[in-house]
Order: sequence, then structure tokens, then C-alpha cells
Amino acid sequence: MFEKFKEKLTANLEIAEAHCDGPCGVYDPAQARIEAESVLMLTKKILDLKHPEEGGDEKAHLAYHNTRTRFILIKEKRAELAKEHLLVLWTDYFKPEHLEKYPDLHTTFWKAAKLCSACKQEVSLEHAQELMEAIKNIHETFWATKGKDVPWYTAS
Amino acid sequence: MFEKFKEKLTANLEIAEAHCDGPCGVYDPAQARIEAESVLMLTKKILDLKHPEEGGDEKAHLAYHNTRTRFILIKEKRAELAKEHLLVLWTDYFKPEHLEKYPDLHTTFWKAAKLCSACKQEVSLEHAQELMEAIKNIHETFWATKGKDVPWYTAS
Amino acid sequence: MFEKFKEKLTANLEIAEAHCDGPCGVYDPAQARIEAESVLMLTKKILDLKHPEEGGDEKAHLAYHNTRTRFILIKEKRAELAKEHLLVLWTDYFKPEHLEKYPDLHTTFWKAAKLCSACKQEVSLEHAQELMEAIKNIHETFWATKGKDVPWYTAS
Amino acid sequence: MFEKFKEKLTANLEIAEAHCDGPCGVYDPAQARIEAESVLMLTKKILDLKHPEEGGDEKAHLAYHNTRTRFILIKEKRAELAKEHLLVLWTDYFKPEHLEKYPDLHTTFWKAAKLCSACKQEVSLEHAQELMEAIKNIHETFWATKGKDVPWYTAS
Amino acid sequence: MFEKFKEKLTANLEIAEAHCDGPCGVYDPAQARIEAESVLMLTKKILDLKHPEEGGDEKAHLAYHNTRTRFILIKEKRAELAKEHLLVLWTDYFKPEHLEKYPDLHTTFWKAAKLCSACKQEVSLEHAQELMEAIKNIHETFWATKGKDVPWYTAS
Amino acid sequence: MFEKFKEKLTANLEIAEAHCDGPCGVYDPAQARIEAESVLMLTKKILDLKHPEEGGDEKAHLAYHNTRTRFILIKEKRAELAKEHLLVLWTDYFKPEHLEKYPDLHTTFWKAAKLCSACKQEVSLEHAQELMEAIKNIHETFWATKGKDVPWYTAS
Repeated sequence: MFEKFKEKLTANLEIAEAHCDGPCGVYDPAQARIEAESVLMLTKKILDLKHPEEGGDEKAHLAYHNTRTRFILIKEKRAELAKEHLLVLWTDYFKPEHLEKYPDLHTTFWKAAKLCSACKQEVSLEHAQELMEAIKNIHETFWATKGKDVPWYTAS
Repeated sequence: MFEKFKEKLTANLEIAEAHCDGPCGVYDPAQARIEAESVLMLTKKILDLKHPEEGGDEKAHLAYHNTRTRFILIKEKRAELAKEHLLVLWTDYFKPEHLEKYPDLHTTFWKAAKLCSACKQEVSLEHAQELMEAIKNIHETFWATKGKDVPWYTAS
Repeated sequence: MFEKFKEKLTANLEIAEAHCDGPCGVYDPAQARIEAESVLMLTKKILDLKHPEEGGDEKAHLAYHNTRTRFILIKEKRAELAKEHLLVLWTDYFKPEHLEKYPDLHTTFWKAAKLCSACKQEVSLEHAQELMEAIKNIHETFWATKGKDVPWYTAS
Repeated sequence: MFEKFKEKLTANLEIAEAHCDGPCGVYDPAQARIEAESVLMLTKKILDLKHPEEGGDEKAHLAYHNTRTRFILIKEKRAELAKEHLLVLWTDYFKPEHLEKYPDLHTTFWKAAKLCSACKQEVSLEHAQELMEAIKNIHETFWATKGKDVPWYTAS
Repeated sequence: MFEKFKEKLTANLEIAEAHCDGPCGVYDPAQARIEAESVLMLTKKILDLKHPEEGGDEKAHLAYHNTRTRFILIKEKRAELAKEHLLVLWTDYFKPEHLEKYPDLHTTFWKAAKLCSACKQEVSLEHAQELMEAIKNIHETFWATKGKDVPWYTAS
Repeated sequence: MFEKFKEKLTANLEIAEAHCDGPCGVYDPAQARIEAESVLMLTKKILDLKHPEEGGDEKAHLAYHNTRTRFILIKEKRAELAKEHLLVLWTDYFKPEHLEKYPDLHTTFWKAAKLCSACKQEVSLEHAQELMEAIKNIHETFWATKGKDVPWYTAS
């Protein structure tokens, strides 16, 4: 079923893709990197939060819960944004000719997107670091396709 | 570069994916279908809009421009939502075991997402219809993976 | 006060409503149903979450709190979306002639919207199920007005 | 069908509504009024825009189109926000006891919401002014239910 | 560095500012005030929430956590909206001539915006009340620049 | 009035600011730069669009209008995002000690924010380039405060 569908689309999409062939787009994996850095920092901060002792000051308890809830909430949002920025690169920037040169392109983005979900579902330093690594790989591929040498840096 | 990265991720993602193995998710390709129907209807309506004659009533001109601008704006938003709903299926619902059974899965979603972009960039009845067809295919694959027989219908 | 206001509006709105009389809209109660299903599933999952024992593993505690917080947050958002989709049907799809045939229309939507709020404010399986039932009723009325027989199904 | 559904809900919603009986909510029809004023001003400005003469300066043409498109786009968004703020009042603030005192409550909000849609669909000074009047009526009813005398003013 | 940059901009911005000199804008500090009231009420309600006793009813515990999480989440969103509405006044409404008359304008808005952030980071009745006071001050300055006497009121 | 208010706030904000003194924040002016680049490219593309001849193909006319409307719409959104990212730096990252070192800080951000508005209101290559220059200046100040040497680059 998919095979036939694929052939048909390939023919028609030539026209649509031509709309992007010009110097239209501003894409930069830095957008995904900044959000993923935020996910990593928030994960660290959630792991480092000290739970106040039972029976202690009520205000300290509320402060703790306010902070933990906010960090989980912001981690959720930032991981979502990292995913969105990655998927814009996959669906809009990358084209069939890139796929020929980088046959793992789909797998790379699928796994990076799934890592974003994992960083929401867990408080996992390991997955947050893997997401950063995945984005670093995408950064290198992306700039290689543009023939430009943009150094990788982090803001934190 | 991607190969090594891929291997490493496969090992670690097992854990994350387990979080979704339970009866957690509510997914339904109907979300993407409804937005794509809207894109198709708006495309038709833009093509059918009658430009008022030059030198005619100023109010009729403003009404025409208000309507055309709104339809383009709403088409843009609906095509974006169709894309978002499709990508949620691709990144969150579908798992490695589905990929084995449907090896064109990545291609299918990449092309469907690119069709959403084409429907923004153009006023193309042909691409809007192909997007509907692409989502119908995804609907069939999706329900096949769940072993459920959900009939395809449209709201318009 | 409302009476006079009502009369005045009735006269003027005839014009506005005529803009929708054509075959313009794509509406489908499935949008609200999918969000309400999500609210129901999340409510179940929150009720089923097992609190780790006091004094146990710190990581297990964080995982529990991360999950519970996310589920409450996503339940909030999904209930809001269910409400939005319902209100689009009420304000945009349904017209005076439908009201004549279904004199409880306003009450039905008011209560369904209030049920969405109840599902945010509580972790109530009962209200989540009533919301599903309310949407099923709206589904039946909606398709009856279109003279189309669309079967009710759920995605979960 | 609706009748039975209504009875059942009435019983259950008592509990949910009790969650709001406390001094919880901050509601103010000023939110809807500010957005509606914006819709009215934008409608005026679109009607007042002078189309540059054919054959004239290309830059003046682009400036005209940029402005008209933005005004239509912002009118759309503001009318949507006016509608949202109105519906929050209807679904969250107003309760069964208000309905008894103001039996036209549902009709009032339904028509006000439909006026918001009309202000999107048209460039109509008349409907924009009626929306303002509808919100003024709601402002009066709202503050009457709170036994507070808040004067009506506009920001423009 | 900033000095030179500033001079250059001053020259060019005259043109842009002229676009706003007309009777274009609908601005009202009531938008920020309503959100800040919500932040204040939510802060009070979080401080007043009674934690159910350990070992008590599981349902009461979930209800408590659902409510606390929602209140923190809604406080976050409302404080963000208060900040947005304030910054629209600062960047769009206020112009160089206002700055001459109110030389503390930048400081006022900077501090009010930082108070919004403080209200997110903390459960602080004191900061929530200071935010209300800051907005009251801005309300007075704003209406003074328009030569209009709009009384300050609160909705709660 | 502002003076007294300012003093009072300074005392209290010390506490709030302490929440950010740690290694918490991930800030990067690249976010604003990427959006501003997009505004610049879209401005160029709107200026370069060729209006099809009167009396020509209807499809070419619709394609032209679809593209122009989309570009204006996307320019609006991107300029808004550039503004948001700039204001996050101003309200959240920069602190009183930075202000002492960079006394033009408020002016810089006020003008950069007003440039974002100008880029919405106009199709102005000059203002879009000035916005890029303003962000380059902010980039230099920002990284100077962090004692890090991050090279300026553009993605287009």
C-alpha cells in the first residue's frame, strides 16, 4: 500500500519542493539546542532539589512544591519546543537529495524526537544528555549540507 | 556518524519506550483528517471566490479582500495543525516493531508532512486531495496496527 | 434588559448567519471526543499511580512526582481543548433553526462545558465518563442535523 | 434524549459547582470589552485605508497591502479573544441560580459569540458596534450579580 | 557601544513611531491588573490549602495534589500574561515624549516585569500584592498621559 | 510617584533575584537573531515578489496573493517572536549589576522592541537590517557579561 502511495507522491511533490529551492529558509539547529539545554538544566535542578524535612516549616514545603512543579512544567514545555524545532528541520529543510547522502536521516530525527518524549516522561540526566548529543549530530549534518563551518557551542 | 549514534540510542530508548507500552495513549488519525478536510474546503473556496469588478463598490472590494485574506490565514493554520497531528502519530504512537512491518513508515509521514507545507505554499486542489489520500492511508495502517476496523468517513 | 437586546440582535444577525449557510464548514464532534477520551484515560492513570513508600529510593519518588504532575497538567490542557471544540460547535455550527428542533441545545452545551471544568478541578472518573456520555449525545444530535449516520467509536 | 441527559447532569454537577462557590474567581467583562474595542477600531481603520492609485509607486502599494493584511489578521485574532473571554464568563462564572434570574442568559451569550464571528467574516462597523453594546449589557448583568457598581468606560 | 547604536536608532525610529501617532491603539492596564489579581488570589488559595493527614483517604490526597498542581500551573500562566500585557504597554504605547515626563518609566516596567517572575518563582503574598501596587501606579501614569480619569477598581 | 515605588521594590526584589543567581538560566540571543533573520528574509522576498499582469491567468493571481499574504503573516509572527525573545533577556537575564555597567540597557531593549514593531508595520529593508544590527549589539553585550567569546554568525 505504502509503495504505490510513495511513487505517486514523489511525482507531485517535485513542484512543491521547488518552492523551497530558492534562498528562502532561515533554519538553525541552535533553536532545538537551546531548548534541549534548558531540558538538561531543569533535569539537573529537579534532581538537586532538597525536600524539606517532614514536620518542618509549612512555607518551606510550599516553596519546594512550587519549584518542583514549575520545573516539571517548564521541562515539559521546553522538551516539546525542542521536538518542534527538530521536526521543522526534518519536514521543511531536508530534501530528497539530502536523504540520498544521509540515508539514516529519518531514523536520526525519529530517535531524537522520541528522546524529547523520554525527557518529558522521566527525570533522566542520561536521556537529556543523549538529546544534546543527538542535536549536536544534527547540527553537524545540517551545516555540512550548507557547506558552512559553524562551531558548536552551548549557552550554559 | 549517524550509524554509531543510532546504535547507542537503540539501547537506551528501550527504557523510554516502555513508558508507552501500557494502555496509555489516545491516538486517532481523525484529528489530522479533520484539519486536512478544512484545508481542502478552504482551497476550494479560495478558488471559487469571485473578484468584484474594478471600479465597483468599495465595500464589496473590502469584503472580498477580508474573505480571501482570512481563508489563506485559516488554511495556513489548519495545514499546520494537520502536520502537528500527523507528527504526533509518527513520533509518539509508532514504535520500532511497527517500522519492521511497515518499512515505508518514515517516507509516508515525511511526504504527508511535506504535503501539508505544499498546501500552505499553494492554492492547490490537487495537493489538498493528495493530503486527504495520504491521511486515509495512514488511517488504514494505524487501525491495522490496533487490530480494529474503524471506517473512514469525512465530515464535509 | 436582555429581552430588548435579544430582539435587536435577532434582526441584525440574520445577515451574519447567512455567511455560514453555504457548505462552508468542516465540523466534527470527534475532535471533542478524542480530547475527552484523553481526559478519561489520564484520570484513570492518576487514580492508578502507586505512591512509592516513604524512605524509599529518591529516584522513584521523583519519577512518581514527575508523572503525576505531568498527568494533571495534560489533563488540564485536554479538558480545555474538549471545551474549546464543544464551544465551536455551539457558537459556529448550530443555528436558530437547530434550536427550534432541539430546545435543550443551550443547556446541553452549558453542562458539557461545565463538565470539562469539573474534570480539571477533580480527579473524578464519574465526571470524565459523564463528559464522554455528553459528547456522545452531542455527536448524535450533530449528525442527525446533517442527516448522516456516523457511528460512534472510541480510540482507546 | 437531551431531557434525560439534562436531569442526570444536574444531580452530578452540584458537586462540581461547589468547587467554585468559594471566593475563587477573578472575572471581569473588561477583558472582552478591550478586545471588542480593538475589533471596532480595526474595522474603522480598514474602512478608512486609502488604496494607492494604480500605476503608482510600488512601495506605496506594498505598504498598503501590508497594512490591510495585518489589520484583517489582527481583527481576526482580537474577535477570537473577545469570544474566548465571553465564553469563560458563560461557562465558568454564571451558575444555575443566575440563569433563574436572567432566563435569557444563554441567548445573550450565544448571540454575542455569533457577533464575534460576524466581525471576523465581515468588515462591518454595525456589527462591531453591536458587539460593544452586547458586551456592555453583559457588563451590567455581571456586576449586578456581584452587587457591585462598576462604571462602563472604553479605552479608545 | 550602546551610545552610538542609540543615536543611529533614534533617527530612524521617528518614521516608525509616526505609524502609531494616529488614534490607533486600544491599550488598557486593566488587562495586566486582571491577571495580577488572579495571581494574588491563587497565591492566597495555595497558602490556604490544607494538606490532608498522612495515612488518610487516598482520594483526598489526590484531590489535594490535583488542586495544588493546577493552582501553581495557573499562577505561572497568569503571571506570564500579566508580564506580556505590561510589556505591550512599555514597548508599544509609551513613546519618547512620555519618557521625558516620566524618566523612571523604564525602571518601573523592568521592576514590574521582574515582580511577575518573582510571583512565579515563589508563593509570596507580599510580591503578589506589590505587583498589584505596581500595576496601580502604571494605571495612574497611563491614564494621566491620556488626560482621562479612569477609576481604579478590582474584580475580586 | 515612581521614585517611592522604585525604592520599595529594590528592597524586596533582592530576594526574588536570588532565585536566579545560581547557574539556572539558559539564555542565548541566537533565538532573537534567528527570528530577526527570518523577518529580514521575508521582507526581501515580499519586495521581490512580482505581481502578475492584469488580465493574466487567474491561478497565477491567486498564487501571488497566497504567497504575499503568507509572507506578511509569517513576518508578523516572526517579528513578534524576536520581540519576545529580546524581552526575556531584558526582564529575566539582565540584573541591576549589569545596568550599572551598561546604563543604556533599557534604551537598547526599548528601541530593539520598537524596531520589531516597525518591521511588522512596514515592509522596510532598512528597519529589518537595523533590527539585526541591534541584536548583534545585544549579542556582544550579553556574552561580555558572561565572559564568553561566542562568535556572531547568521543562518542565511
